[in-house]
Amino acid sequence: MLGLAAARTIVAEALDHARSLDLPPMTVAVLDAGGHLVTFVREDGSSLYREAIARGKAMGALGMGTGSRTLQARAAAHPEFINAVTVLAGGALVPVPGGVLIRSDDAGRLVGAVGVSGHLPDADEACAVAGIVAAGLSADTGAGS
Amino acid sequence: MLGLAAARTIVAEALDHARSLDLPPMTVAVLDAGGHLVTFVREDGSSLYREAIARGKAMGALGMGTGSRTLQARAAAHPEFINAVTVLAGGALVPVPGGVLIRSDDAGRLVGAVGVSGHLPDADEACAVAGIVAAGLSADTGAGS
Amino acid sequence: MLGLAAARTIVAEALDHARSLDLPPMTVAVLDAGGHLVTFVREDGSSLYREAIARGKAMGALGMGTGSRTLQARAAAHPEFINAVTVLAGGALVPVPGGVLIRSDDAGRLVGAVGVSGHLPDADEACAVAGIVAAGLSADTGAGS
Amino acid sequence: MLGLAAARTIVAEALDHARSLDLPPMTVAVLDAGGHLVTFVREDGSSLYREAIARGKAMGALGMGTGSRTLQARAAAHPEFINAVTVLAGGALVPVPGGVLIRSDDAGRLVGAVGVSGHLPDADEACAVAGIVAAGLSADTGAGS
Repeated sequence: MLGLAAARTIVAEALDHARSLDLPPMTVAVLDAGGHLVTFVREDGSSLYREAIARGKAMGALGMGTGSRTLQARAAAHPEFINAVTVLAGGALVPVPGGVLIRSDDAGRLVGAVGVSGHLPDADEACAVAGIVAAGLSADTGAGS
Repeated sequence: MLGLAAARTIVAEALDHARSLDLPPMTVAVLDAGGHLVTFVREDGSSLYREAIARGKAMGALGMGTGSRTLQARAAAHPEFINAVTVLAGGALVPVPGGVLIRSDDAGRLVGAVGVSGHLPDADEACAVAGIVAAGLSADTGAGS
Repeated sequence: MLGLAAARTIVAEALDHARSLDLPPMTVAVLDAGGHLVTFVREDGSSLYREAIARGKAMGALGMGTGSRTLQARAAAHPEFINAVTVLAGGALVPVPGGVLIRSDDAGRLVGAVGVSGHLPDADEACAVAGIVAAGLSADTGAGS
Repeated sequence: MLGLAAARTIVAEALDHARSLDLPPMTVAVLDAGGHLVTFVREDGSSLYREAIARGKAMGALGMGTGSRTLQARAAAHPEFINAVTVLAGGALVPVPGGVLIRSDDAGRLVGAVGVSGHLPDADEACAVAGIVAAGLSADTGAGS
């Protein structure tokens, strides 16, 4: 189980990472393994779709069982498949980096996902990873899969 | 404008109030004046619809321009109207106390809304009010309107 | 976690119970703690809405954190609240008995829910309880809460 | 008519086939000729969108009257048509192999469809076909049409 305490650490550290890089306003959503929102922060000045994008990255990762970086590659190779799942999911699949699976550090068990939106996808993903690692958990971006 | 700093204070103080009363797990959502989520916390053990309920209380308050306590009275007096709006809004109107408008302390200008769900409606509303007041803002429950 | 093996036992035993009582065709859905379908059976001759009803009983129980028997009482006392949540949930809340929370037998931890539809609500619920108990788990109908 | 007994055989044999090939966790949905779910199994560890994908493959096959392998070819040749139908259907058309029509062995009459998701489309389809054949029915993948 991903508890609120760990989820809050993830958000705080992801935002600290964003501030250390002087990124624009960021939005961070943490979902549990069932895809339900645990905690959420939208920094001042974030545009209106940032919640949906951050959640869509995280939920798409949980829905497909891989970080959203992999989904970007699949969307390029098989757009008809990723398009169909995106419609099925009511849009809750955003196939660009920034949706990262959270695994327990020991057994690699899936416990949730983080979605970050606000800057370029690589930077968004770096913030998610920084948050997860700072919470003593393992970040699975989908890279290499 | 309701900034993230004030929204976080509202959440922290609402949850402190819930803990001081030994309430069950609570869920708190803070929306800005446009109805967009600023920050959100779901305590461990909250059931799955708590996000939707907390947001529905807050969004219904913004949507109708009055705290959700008033909406409960209107639903009793004019169920056909409140039912119609509830369906129009896709459910984002939950007519029980716990959705509280946030007004600036000086001019009474509307800056957002808080929705709380987890216990009985009166207790949910008391948590929302405690959070808003602790942030130096004015809570409009709809009582008396 | 509610695994597939336990979920299948629940379905098999719930249907055995229905057959021992000579009930009409039954539909049984087992959801995990996140509300996702694990396994499902619709007996020959079941009418077309049975899937939606069985899932709505189970999902409503998970969404509100109590068996659907309690939700029936709440719908009677506060129809405006249960109506609003039903719309919010896209209908996935059916406030009659037959949606039963599954708890681990030792710690009472929530691991999922069963929904049964096909006959009168009390009989539907009895089938769900029979299945859960046969799987060595604890059934929480919401009675007494 | 596709009865529950045959549907359960299809699921059991499809999963046996998957296990014999050491595939990752699989999800199998069996729909009747009206597109209604008869039985469903999601193996432990399946990701959250597998139900929607498996059903989308099977429902798309029924909806268009051909196995989803054909729909993949049509999506390549006429993406504007398949995209439009996918949106019409709320996503319940996933144009990759793994959605297989079930026909009666003698007259070729359509009795339902199976959808499988979990691994690469060809492997998913092979599991569906193995299940249908083991149940003494005829599998129509859409290949050659």
